[in-house]
Amino acid sequence: MERTIENLRQYIRAGRALIPADTLILHGNLVNVMTSEIYPADVAIYQDMIVAVGDVSAYQGPKTKVIDASGSYLVPGLIDGHIHSECSKLSITSFAKGIVPSGTTCMVSGLDEYISVSGLEGLKEVFAEIKQSPLKVFWGAPYKTPYTFPTSTISCNFNPEIHAQVQTWPECFGVWETVREAVQELDEDTLGALSLSYKNRLPIFGCAPMARGNDLNGYLCAGVRLDHESYDHQEVVEKLRKGMHMVIRESSVTHFLAENIRAVTEVNPSLARRVSFCTDDVTAKDLVEKGHVDHLVRLAIRAGVSPMTAIQMGTINSAEAYRIDHLVGSISPGRIADILLVDNPSSFNVQAVIANGNLVARDHKLAYDLHAPKRSSLLTSELKCKPVTAKDFEYRVSLANGRAKVLSMEVKGPFVRKRRDVVLDVVDHVVQPDTDQDVLMVSVLERFGINGNKSLAFCSGWGLQAGAMASSAAPDDNNLIVLGTNAEDMAFAVNHLIKEGGGQVVVKDGKVLDFFSLPVGGIVCDLEPGEVAQREDEMNGAARLLGCNLPEPLMYMFFLPITAIPDYAITDVGPVDCIALTTFDPILELVEHT
Amino acid sequence: MERTIENLRQYIRAGRALIPADTLILHGNLVNVMTSEIYPADVAIYQDMIVAVGDVSAYQGPKTKVIDASGSYLVPGLIDGHIHSECSKLSITSFAKGIVPSGTTCMVSGLDEYISVSGLEGLKEVFAEIKQSPLKVFWGAPYKTPYTFPTSTISCNFNPEIHAQVQTWPECFGVWETVREAVQELDEDTLGALSLSYKNRLPIFGCAPMARGNDLNGYLCAGVRLDHESYDHQEVVEKLRKGMHMVIRESSVTHFLAENIRAVTEVNPSLARRVSFCTDDVTAKDLVEKGHVDHLVRLAIRAGVSPMTAIQMGTINSAEAYRIDHLVGSISPGRIADILLVDNPSSFNVQAVIANGNLVARDHKLAYDLHAPKRSSLLTSELKCKPVTAKDFEYRVSLANGRAKVLSMEVKGPFVRKRRDVVLDVVDHVVQPDTDQDVLMVSVLERFGINGNKSLAFCSGWGLQAGAMASSAAPDDNNLIVLGTNAEDMAFAVNHLIKEGGGQVVVKDGKVLDFFSLPVGGIVCDLEPGEVAQREDEMNGAARLLGCNLPEPLMYMFFLPITAIPDYAITDVGPVDCIALTTFDPILELVEHT
Repeated sequence: MERTIENLRQYIRAGRALIPADTLILHGNLVNVMTSEIYPADVAIYQDMIVAVGDVSAYQGPKTKVIDASGSYLVPGLIDGHIHSECSKLSITSFAKGIVPSGTTCMVSGLDEYISVSGLEGLKEVFAEIKQSPLKVFWGAPYKTPYTFPTSTISCNFNPEIHAQVQTWPECFGVWETVREAVQELDEDTLGALSLSYKNRLPIFGCAPMARGNDLNGYLCAGVRLDHESYDHQEVVEKLRKGMHMVIRESSVTHFLAENIRAVTEVNPSLARRVSFCTDDVTAKDLVEKGHVDHLVRLAIRAGVSPMTAIQMGTINSAEAYRIDHLVGSISPGRIADILLVDNPSSFNVQAVIANGNLVARDHKLAYDLHAPKRSSLLTSELKCKPVTAKDFEYRVSLANGRAKVLSMEVKGPFVRKRRDVVLDVVDHVVQPDTDQDVLMVSVLERFGINGNKSLAFCSGWGLQAGAMASSAAPDDNNLIVLGTNAEDMAFAVNHLIKEGGGQVVVKDGKVLDFFSLPVGGIVCDLEPGEVAQREDEMNGAARLLGCNLPEPLMYMFFLPITAIPDYAITDVGPVDCIALTTFDPILELVEHT
Repeated sequence: MERTIENLRQYIRAGRALIPADTLILHGNLVNVMTSEIYPADVAIYQDMIVAVGDVSAYQGPKTKVIDASGSYLVPGLIDGHIHSECSKLSITSFAKGIVPSGTTCMVSGLDEYISVSGLEGLKEVFAEIKQSPLKVFWGAPYKTPYTFPTSTISCNFNPEIHAQVQTWPECFGVWETVREAVQELDEDTLGALSLSYKNRLPIFGCAPMARGNDLNGYLCAGVRLDHESYDHQEVVEKLRKGMHMVIRESSVTHFLAENIRAVTEVNPSLARRVSFCTDDVTAKDLVEKGHVDHLVRLAIRAGVSPMTAIQMGTINSAEAYRIDHLVGSISPGRIADILLVDNPSSFNVQAVIANGNLVARDHKLAYDLHAPKRSSLLTSELKCKPVTAKDFEYRVSLANGRAKVLSMEVKGPFVRKRRDVVLDVVDHVVQPDTDQDVLMVSVLERFGINGNKSLAFCSGWGLQAGAMASSAAPDDNNLIVLGTNAEDMAFAVNHLIKEGGGQVVVKDGKVLDFFSLPVGGIVCDLEPGEVAQREDEMNGAARLLGCNLPEPLMYMFFLPITAIPDYAITDVGPVDCIALTTFDPILELVEHT
């Protein structure tokens, strides 16, 4: 919805019924999230705008379409307050197919993984893809990229100079996921981005799990408006009492809603006013099986929140948190026409979806064919790293033969990695991975043609007995990660991804067990959500054939480069101690054979 | 509160208790407007910022001051959501003395009368005066000036070019008082200002009394966020249901609160969430006798609103309406330290006021000497119009002698002027005013040295039997208005104001009965609020000596140039038909003596 003078002229005239509406929605019950009331009301739409609510008989012209909403409730389009859609491996087009039929018409996102692989020019291409989809994305400019400590390699480093540029873009609605540590450490680039955001009247989106007491106070003194990560409801209550908006996260891996919502259901119902929802990371499988924000609304109702309040959490509360309530979040004249037909506020089954004024979905399916755009080389080019050999994945030490005491990063869950000390054999100067002890080699290869970085370390928890697996989708940097039981299969897996131009692969004994192509930036694809869910199942199945017993083998691997996850990670600059925020030498001690 | 990188660094450190607080407020009960809770909590302040709320023991240093709030409630500083402070005839400095001790620490204002007399450079001088006062003004750039139809003369015409400049100023928080008619008529300049406001992420403040149905819809399609003028509570309800924020007006002349608040007390308590308060125009006398926004809070409580909700209406609701809740409106870390000590939420008697981190008022008085700044010639210069003679106020017609049927503008209340047809004598080509029929001459003289415009017309309702009165304070333009029973006294009154450099004067038979000097821009003065209240009383007393029986003779006169008041007005370009939006000829018919 652009508001040029010419557009304003047309909108105002349409609002006064001087131009007929394009569409009327008749006979529905309006769920008015502004006033917490439900009553019969009709809606008139002109182009992408709601121009009248109530009696709209004056707005009907000869070409006006009518949607009969008899027996249905009219609810504003739902908003996902914080989402990295890329983690689903679905392109924007595919993600829209996954979430719009469930009623999510808006999402707030940093699109940060697109930026990591394709920079600002790639981001503009993604904006164009969004524009031709039924989905709206309210973009927050990442406070700083890469997010990693120490600095790893990506295709575009966000800094204050870039902020000065992008914060004035109309697509920009805030500063994205400003982590507490960066604020607390008074990181110069971060403060620069925040200082600019005041000038540009942009809210600061936060990320401060477990921030309490004085640490939370200090964080708030930087002006952070909201947070989407709280580990328990006491934390939610403290943040709300200190003036934050709380975006409760229910992702595919972290299920916080049932616990966090106790702030409202047990502590104080008045707290609901500034509580909203997000999914953060969501798998295609969950989208297919559970739905999206509609699922969160239902979860909240099930947890004891009134349907009106739960719907407000999914709509206007988010819109107010992100200061986009002039555009979305309610069915009011002057707002973008994102309207759901819902069977009932309590059961909350989305029957049909109007987005940007168009009926785009019915019965949980898009109502028209949506095709992904043709993409430029920015988002389709090959991985820019050189083919590798087995030697690249041999951990070489000065000791010729003997044993090495090694720090292996053991995965204890998707978001926990702990230190595990192991003793490995050294043969001809090479530290040997050891499947009996569940110790694998892991490597991250820079893949943007910038410096050819390649790290090497040890990891545990996957239980692989043979083979290797690799992925070019690996947040936050999306460099190429590979782990395996032997150097040959690791090299084979990496070379396969280089040859195919990105994706995920599971190999064994020099053969591909399964390959999942992610041709868009090497991180996402244009398959249907159901197809992606199936491919992910199949890939996990292939990993299980190697002996892996984790619930989501590839996801656990692809989160390994995230340095915000304690206690260890690996990026292209080396294995990282996430507490000390430094790289470390995994070789603790070398012992000659005695 | 500026958020430079260096400031952020200090604020964050202070928030983490790494720098001692400047002030602690201990032992008070926090009225938490974010969560609708009241509980004991202490507050730490560093410079102008609240850095901690709750347990603040870690924030005390050797030089930290302590304010003991035992037995008191801590309430955020109050916000007046829409005010023309100039109408009180108090300079910013004097106005601050009038309202800050009552707890109003913030106001939203267009400062439009300062602009009308001194342009953008004068406005900058007013910004500087604000900065050295305890008051914060969130300035909205007038959508267009002059407000009049047809266009009258002022010292600075606001247009889209000026908007492009001022909307990027840090002092600018929105577009001010965008009247419905300008939107409805698709006025090019207005739409230009609105279009720019989207680009600059600024909310649009409205003004749409009696807008309902399709007219309201059309207005909302322009993106107007809020309104401060509704004539009854049904209008309030409709606007809230259609997604607006409602700023209930209780001014010195229009008392809407008791009626408007029925939207909340009778229709639906949930509506309270987007209801806040403003005074719009307030007299010094009311400030002295009743208080300011604190008075509105008490009125709302008396009308049946819960104290918590009434306090929210005076604080956070306004802050959210104007999108300044990241700065003010709650006692939260990271917000500006505007904190009131109140005896009790129900009786709401403001005992002490902390503004920008400083204790500025106690027991209804400023706690320190506040002096007006030295002002430049922009705000102190003489009225730029030439001395006049009686001839200037003789209404000359072609007819030598006979009678004239004339349209006289009859005042029926401060905000109503009706047509009254009268027959006057014509003597030697001059239409004669007639005290027996209560028909006076009225004139507006352009006073910025731009074009020397001078209008002349007839008015009724004042009941003057002799003399004249004049004022250089006369919104919206603040040209020089004079009305009187005879041309000699009118000329004398005008010349007196020119000689004295602005103010108000009542004259009789060539003598000054009383003169009230308004040396700042000819519209306001630096007297104490109590002194201004007394001077206004005295001026009205002088007008009564002339035979006037209106409750506020000078105010009724000085509202005459406002063309937004139906049905008639007068500006420097002539008498105005406010319905047709044209000037008109007051002479309806000339009849020779028969």
